Amino acid sequence: MNSTIQSPTPLPHEQAPVAWIAGVGASAGLGAAVARRFAQGGFTVALTGRTAERVETIAAEIRAAGGVAHALPGDISNEASVAELADRVRELGPLTAAVFNAGNASRAPTLELTAAQFEQAWRTGVLGGFLFAQAALRRILNNGLSTAGSTGRGTLLFTGATAALRGKPPFAAFAASKAALRSLSQTLAREFGSEGIHVAHIVIDGGIDGERLRQSAPQRAQQAGDDGLLQASAIAESYWQLHHQHRSAWTQELDLRPFKEPF
Amino acid sequence: MNSTIQSPTPLPHEQAPVAWIAGVGASAGLGAAVARRFAQGGFTVALTGRTAERVETIAAEIRAAGGVAHALPGDISNEASVAELADRVRELGPLTAAVFNAGNASRAPTLELTAAQFEQAWRTGVLGGFLFAQAALRRILNNGLSTAGSTGRGTLLFTGATAALRGKPPFAAFAASKAALRSLSQTLAREFGSEGIHVAHIVIDGGIDGERLRQSAPQRAQQAGDDGLLQASAIAESYWQLHHQHRSAWTQELDLRPFKEPF
Amino acid sequence: MNSTIQSPTPLPHEQAPVAWIAGVGASAGLGAAVARRFAQGGFTVALTGRTAERVETIAAEIRAAGGVAHALPGDISNEASVAELADRVRELGPLTAAVFNAGNASRAPTLELTAAQFEQAWRTGVLGGFLFAQAALRRILNNGLSTAGSTGRGTLLFTGATAALRGKPPFAAFAASKAALRSLSQTLAREFGSEGIHVAHIVIDGGIDGERLRQSAPQRAQQAGDDGLLQASAIAESYWQLHHQHRSAWTQELDLRPFKEPF
Amino acid sequence: MNSTIQSPTPLPHEQAPVAWIAGVGASAGLGAAVARRFAQGGFTVALTGRTAERVETIAAEIRAAGGVAHALPGDISNEASVAELADRVRELGPLTAAVFNAGNASRAPTLELTAAQFEQAWRTGVLGGFLFAQAALRRILNNGLSTAGSTGRGTLLFTGATAALRGKPPFAAFAASKAALRSLSQTLAREFGSEGIHVAHIVIDGGIDGERLRQSAPQRAQQAGDDGLLQASAIAESYWQLHHQHRSAWTQELDLRPFKEPF
Repeated sequence: MNSTIQSPTPLPHEQAPVAWIAGVGASAGLGAAVARRFAQGGFTVALTGRTAERVETIAAEIRAAGGVAHALPGDISNEASVAELADRVRELGPLTAAVFNAGNASRAPTLELTAAQFEQAWRTGVLGGFLFAQAALRRILNNGLSTAGSTGRGTLLFTGATAALRGKPPFAAFAASKAALRSLSQTLAREFGSEGIHVAHIVIDGGIDGERLRQSAPQRAQQAGDDGLLQASAIAESYWQLHHQHRSAWTQELDLRPFKEPF
Repeated sequence: MNSTIQSPTPLPHEQAPVAWIAGVGASAGLGAAVARRFAQGGFTVALTGRTAERVETIAAEIRAAGGVAHALPGDISNEASVAELADRVRELGPLTAAVFNAGNASRAPTLELTAAQFEQAWRTGVLGGFLFAQAALRRILNNGLSTAGSTGRGTLLFTGATAALRGKPPFAAFAASKAALRSLSQTLAREFGSEGIHVAHIVIDGGIDGERLRQSAPQRAQQAGDDGLLQASAIAESYWQLHHQHRSAWTQELDLRPFKEPF
Repeated sequence: MNSTIQSPTPLPHEQAPVAWIAGVGASAGLGAAVARRFAQGGFTVALTGRTAERVETIAAEIRAAGGVAHALPGDISNEASVAELADRVRELGPLTAAVFNAGNASRAPTLELTAAQFEQAWRTGVLGGFLFAQAALRRILNNGLSTAGSTGRGTLLFTGATAALRGKPPFAAFAASKAALRSLSQTLAREFGSEGIHVAHIVIDGGIDGERLRQSAPQRAQQAGDDGLLQASAIAESYWQLHHQHRSAWTQELDLRPFKEPF
Repeated sequence: MNSTIQSPTPLPHEQAPVAWIAGVGASAGLGAAVARRFAQGGFTVALTGRTAERVETIAAEIRAAGGVAHALPGDISNEASVAELADRVRELGPLTAAVFNAGNASRAPTLELTAAQFEQAWRTGVLGGFLFAQAALRRILNNGLSTAGSTGRGTLLFTGATAALRGKPPFAAFAASKAALRSLSQTLAREFGSEGIHVAHIVIDGGIDGERLRQSAPQRAQQAGDDGLLQASAIAESYWQLHHQHRSAWTQELDLRPFKEPF
């Protein structure tokens, strides 16, 4: 018997579908892993991140592995910058998947946080998500695909965190931002579902195995043991599957955590 | 580039892995669809439901399509019956997936519900889930697989409903049962995750397209339009993917609803 | 300036309003504290609990302090017993407040729980809540008060626990029961709000200071320090205030925990 | 028998305790009602709002009724302005209650929202809440009261909305802001509880009866019927009671809605 994993809706003009991933940083990070997964699946991937060099390195790695990847460095929390990036994305083909992956978990006792730090967390994690979502939704709504396809017209995914579900010190700024981003994902799911756009929020619960964690918390990384940290490629696999869910059974939210993570 | 969907951990002795699905009723229902999906994926499937004839019909259909299926009719809310069923499951091979899918959404104003009706909803939907979970967990813990496999030792899935998240008339009995079942899934996920057993709860939000709905609410089925009802096969695909999630990134809960379902 | 705490709706025939509290056990427990608070406020209180001696002792204490209290021992999870108790409550005057406070937090690894233990937790904590709620609602609906009163016709309160919000070992049975009870409270709030009946669920988060805790976990009690455990009288005060909320601003759920409880 | 409503901790030097309410607008609004309630209870109240005239009118009304009230107009989302206001508050006496009540529910389809509008909602509703909370917490921590008082050192309350719990069009900006504010309240509750500061979030579910609603949605106001809209004074009563909860049993969150509000 054959598997029945849903195929994406066939595209017009034989153009490859485009996946736009914002918040691409380290090569071992989640943004890069998602880009690789969609490239493996035949997508043209557009990579956006603040550091041009990093984004270009990852795009080059994907191309070296046989994929089609474009580096689109830029600041997703700047309105003009997003508009420009969106224009470049349009030239690459029909946008059908967009992933917002920006935002850092800074930590500080709340009374030591400056207004500037609090604002920065919002600007990167929420305003960026809002601007990216608007740009991506407009492109997906005009990607030439019909809503009648079995997986819908396109997908918009938001990387969330457990902090989105409960505020806890020393994460006042990060948690508030993630809560706002989660709320935005819900509004958009309700607003664009019937237009055939699948909006989902992924709650990452635990540390992601990668350069950042291994440098900032080497002990934690070691104590976690095998698969005690989230593998970026495993997370990316769930993003890929979310994109392929049949439109009669879409997920708005799922959590992901290592098998031995206490929660 | 090749897909990286996780393969299940290789099994000893070349025996096919076993999936046990409880709550199998109509051929067009969810239990049957999950059984078909796992059979397609190479599992030996064991089907449990109260009506022997129905269970046998579905098992026969799966065998006719080239799968390996066993009808194990029985009452999952009866302790002795569950023990007997579990013994028969053990003979089929190593249990690695178990799905609890029982429970009906009866409706009544709360003051019109009898104690017997309230108890029946609990017996089928919660006690059954508890007994099935105990039996399945014991088998999975002894299935001879190591926890070191990339997808863990096995999976235990619970079919939930939006009613699990909020009580609403006229569903006092059903909602209370689904809330309890969801709670149980959380306890088990926390208790058995580090043992390599993946416990997840799926929140079905909307009507499932099938005989039952088309007979009981034909107008609703018609108004829903294309893919406006959940396709049982699409739900089953998510169950299949949950079973294959890498153990570094397991989902405890996800929701599933039609793209145009208001929520 | 004077306080504007709402007065209860004036009662017909100068009869004192009746509060029925189920789940009355130790004199230092929550049920007794709620009974004392309503007696202090001028209510005739009816106390139900399984151990006649305990219930009678508390009723006598309240009478000795000048209150009006009746011991109504009985098993709230038994249909016939509840019907008989409800008849006796009716004779005491118009029922306007009912509090369900039964249920114990037993602990066990899930695979060591027997079906009988799992059922017992449900019977005491959920079926009891259902039977009590039906009986109380029928009496409140017929208490002769109009819905036009500023605080409504009556109040039905459920004592909940943090376990209602998340299942966690070793509390499989307790958590499932509390989740079901919470669901029931939501259904009833939605079903009877417009009838002028205020249904609320109180999430107790932490240990209650009393005989039981001081005996079963003396160290914990000591380490908690001043007000580190919930004072039963402080909880009871919130129950009292819930009963007096103006019907334009009713609470369905609130949590209560000691100021230094981590959560 | 006497009531046991907790008295606030006695203050040093016979100075009246101070309540600072931010987000004071219309005389018939919630901010004004909270101010009146605390003034009735013997507090010196400090009223902050953007429109000096409105704030002064309400302060004058309270003084005319025998209370002590100070108009402190200003922009709570401006860091320098908040610092200045906080200095003035300090001069009035020991701050023991602070209420953040700002934020408006603007509505727009998400693709029609400008970045400026999205930012404005955050600035008023979240940054303002953060700056106000920091200023208030610093004052409460230095109000000279001991944490040993039965109701703690002070209270910080946030006015929330159902939108905080779920994002829904056309409220993308408002819902994201309220979700972030709720998250902030949780962080602060966990961070300052053990310091004796009670932080709570009130979920207002429904329309508040007042000028704004009666003008913007006269039909809705009429259809709501008696007590079908939240009375600002009834909400204020719950704020007052939250402030007086015994520190062994504090509420972090409660909801408030009219008795016949569907939810």
